[in-house]
Amino acid sequence: MGQLLERAHARATGALRIGITGPPGSGKSTLTDRLLGAYRRDGRRVAVVATDPSSPYSGGSLLGDRVRMGSHAGDPGVFIRSMSTRGRLGGLNASAEMVAVLLDAEGYRPIIFETVGVGQSEVEVIDRTDTVVVVVAPGFGDDIQAEKAGLMEVGDVFVVNKADNPGATRAARTLENMVSMGPSHGWRPPVLLTVAKTGEGVDEVVDAIRLHNESMAESGALRSRRRARAEAEISRMIERLAAQVTEPAVARYSEAVMAGATDPWSAAEEIFNSFRTGGHRPRGQ
Amino acid sequence: MGQLLERAHARATGALRIGITGPPGSGKSTLTDRLLGAYRRDGRRVAVVATDPSSPYSGGSLLGDRVRMGSHAGDPGVFIRSMSTRGRLGGLNASAEMVAVLLDAEGYRPIIFETVGVGQSEVEVIDRTDTVVVVVAPGFGDDIQAEKAGLMEVGDVFVVNKADNPGATRAARTLENMVSMGPSHGWRPPVLLTVAKTGEGVDEVVDAIRLHNESMAESGALRSRRRARAEAEISRMIERLAAQVTEPAVARYSEAVMAGATDPWSAAEEIFNSFRTGGHRPRGQ
Repeated sequence: MGQLLERAHARATGALRIGITGPPGSGKSTLTDRLLGAYRRDGRRVAVVATDPSSPYSGGSLLGDRVRMGSHAGDPGVFIRSMSTRGRLGGLNASAEMVAVLLDAEGYRPIIFETVGVGQSEVEVIDRTDTVVVVVAPGFGDDIQAEKAGLMEVGDVFVVNKADNPGATRAARTLENMVSMGPSHGWRPPVLLTVAKTGEGVDEVVDAIRLHNESMAESGALRSRRRARAEAEISRMIERLAAQVTEPAVARYSEAVMAGATDPWSAAEEIFNSFRTGGHRPRGQ
Repeated sequence: MGQLLERAHARATGALRIGITGPPGSGKSTLTDRLLGAYRRDGRRVAVVATDPSSPYSGGSLLGDRVRMGSHAGDPGVFIRSMSTRGRLGGLNASAEMVAVLLDAEGYRPIIFETVGVGQSEVEVIDRTDTVVVVVAPGFGDDIQAEKAGLMEVGDVFVVNKADNPGATRAARTLENMVSMGPSHGWRPPVLLTVAKTGEGVDEVVDAIRLHNESMAESGALRSRRRARAEAEISRMIERLAAQVTEPAVARYSEAVMAGATDPWSAAEEIFNSFRTGGHRPRGQ
């Protein structure tokens, strides 16, 4: 896979990556479907990678490929796959960064990552995208404070979807208030209203994404974000290599921990030091 | 900190660790408060470590120490702290495993970890505890499928709290059905009804936790779970040491990636190999 990625990285041109996140039931998939349609009208190839909340044990994707995105099912210019949060795409153990680079090299732009935005996953979304769209439904203001704060921090564009339902204006006002209290880094996240089901307001979301991207490019924030992404991916890969090499020693030492002969932290230091001085060899070398 | 942990690990006696998880609004904190009371009646010192959904950026805890657990605020036999999901406890950069070992050495038992159970956090709960109690509110059956499945997989004991509200019986029936479809490993997770606000049903939860622990000890599952925990902690610590040592090189290489001179995966391999042959030295050595 190394050479494939190397070649893909050389061919990739920095396609825009959009993150779509928000609480369950906010209509993220429908909005994503609409955005797909809007970008397709420009004749571009577009990719959607949906990160489903997957089983921590099977590593499998519970929902499978997004059957809900039926309107683009037969379109060869659209790539739609779901990816488990454990980093598996269609049986392939790939990181979101790898997937994005491969899609970029194939000419897909934008690349949309859709994720259920609760807990850790928002962090993952922002780490892999340039522009994060937070989608909420009316009634958002009633959620617990902490969840709201997490979403507020990652959003570059806010969307109150299902705006034909009661409470939409109130949710938008809550968001506006929170945005105005947040830190200002040159870009003030807009709060938009959509009815994804009918397509209402979707063009405004497309415009806001474009404007955010232009603003990021101008201020240098885009470069910083992408550099941080490169750093994170290198570190992640080093971790994986280290885990592979130290695996047998970790198993051995965990038995010693169970026997009370050592503790996990002393064990880690011993393994680490012996590994650095060439005491452990990767299996197969 | 190394010696402190080493000594604590030697003194720790394998105190029972209980995980309390479930969707926001299910009344986890109130139930935890009740469990605290029940264990305190036995004269034991009890600890609660609450993992709050914290800002991914500040690393800080939004809710602060649990003011809601007011009924035990002045009790010296009770230790209550909140810990951010990024692994910080009161400004200390400690892992849950470290915290549990330190509390264990101080004679706290059980040690209760309370977490908002959505996404990754269930996985973290199960990784650090012996018995996981999943708490839901009536109406649980209406949640999205994926979230339910995630909770079902981690639960050793299920509790429908707020059972004086409509829908409790239906939620319990849904859970019973899901439990019966799940894998059987010798322990069939019970589904209990509680009204934590009044204390109703709390003794049954205490009993179920004890029974699960006995069953785990008998079958050898407790040992396996704890061994896996030791392995995970060793690996986590090795990762941290590796990250520390390779940090300057990662920063350097990420610039090269931005300049198009390499890709993240080739960079990781180069850093890793040079690190293994002694090309990189930890700072300060």
